[in-house]
Amino acid sequence: MSEENNYNDEKYFDDNCIFCKIIKKEIISEIIYEDEYTIAFHDQSPKATVHILVVPKIHVKDITEVDSFFISKITNTIQLLAKDLVLKEKGFRVITNCGAGAGQTVWHLHFHMLAGKYKHF
Amino acid sequence: MSEENNYNDEKYFDDNCIFCKIIKKEIISEIIYEDEYTIAFHDQSPKATVHILVVPKIHVKDITEVDSFFISKITNTIQLLAKDLVLKEKGFRVITNCGAGAGQTVWHLHFHMLAGKYKHF
Repeated sequence: MSEENNYNDEKYFDDNCIFCKIIKKEIISEIIYEDEYTIAFHDQSPKATVHILVVPKIHVKDITEVDSFFISKITNTIQLLAKDLVLKEKGFRVITNCGAGAGQTVWHLHFHMLAGKYKHF
Repeated sequence: MSEENNYNDEKYFDDNCIFCKIIKKEIISEIIYEDEYTIAFHDQSPKATVHILVVPKIHVKDITEVDSFFISKITNTIQLLAKDLVLKEKGFRVITNCGAGAGQTVWHLHFHMLAGKYKHF
C-alpha cells in the first residue's frame, strides 16, 4: 500500500460490509473524524461514556491482515482523537478483537477507543 | 525513527522502568518472541488462558507517543504471534491502556494479547 493508490476505488470495499457502507456514506453514522485513509465514528451501542470506532478505509478483516501503511494511519487518527480523551476522561483504552472467539462481530478491522465509565464487553 | 538507529543505546531506555529492565534482561521474564525492535513475554498476572504483552524496545509512554516505525514493528510481532492464537484459541483480543484513568500501570507502551477464557481487567 502507498500514498499513491486511490482508496476510493470500489476494489477496496466489500459490498456486504456495514463499515464499508459507512465509509461510502450509504449508511449514516455519527462521524467524528475522517481523512483519506481512516474514519472515526461513535459506536451505535456505546459501552462507555465515550466509545469511538476507528476504521481504515479499506476492507481488511482484522489486525492480522493490516499492513504497515494503514496501521500507521489508524494510529495517527487514534493519536489525534486521544488529545481530547486524555484531557477530558483521564485516559482511554484501545481494543481490537480478532476472531469470533474474541467477540469480533464486524469483519472489517476496527479499533474501539473507550473512555470514561464503561461496561466490559 | 528508522532501521539505521541503534536501539540498544541507553538513551532509548528509562532506568526506572520495569519493561526496560525486562528488555535489558535485568529482570527475568518468560520471553516468547524477540527481535531488534520488540519483545513479547507472558504477563506475570495473566488475566486469560493466554496473556502476552508486546512491548517496543524503546521507552515510549503510551500509544499517543509511538511513531509509525515502531507501531509497524509492534503490529508485525502481534501478527506473528496471532498465527498460533487464532488456530488454538479461535481468536484473540488486543488491548492497550493509555492513562491512569484507563488502568495503565506501567508507563511503557504495551499491547495485551488475550486469548481463551479471560476475566476483565
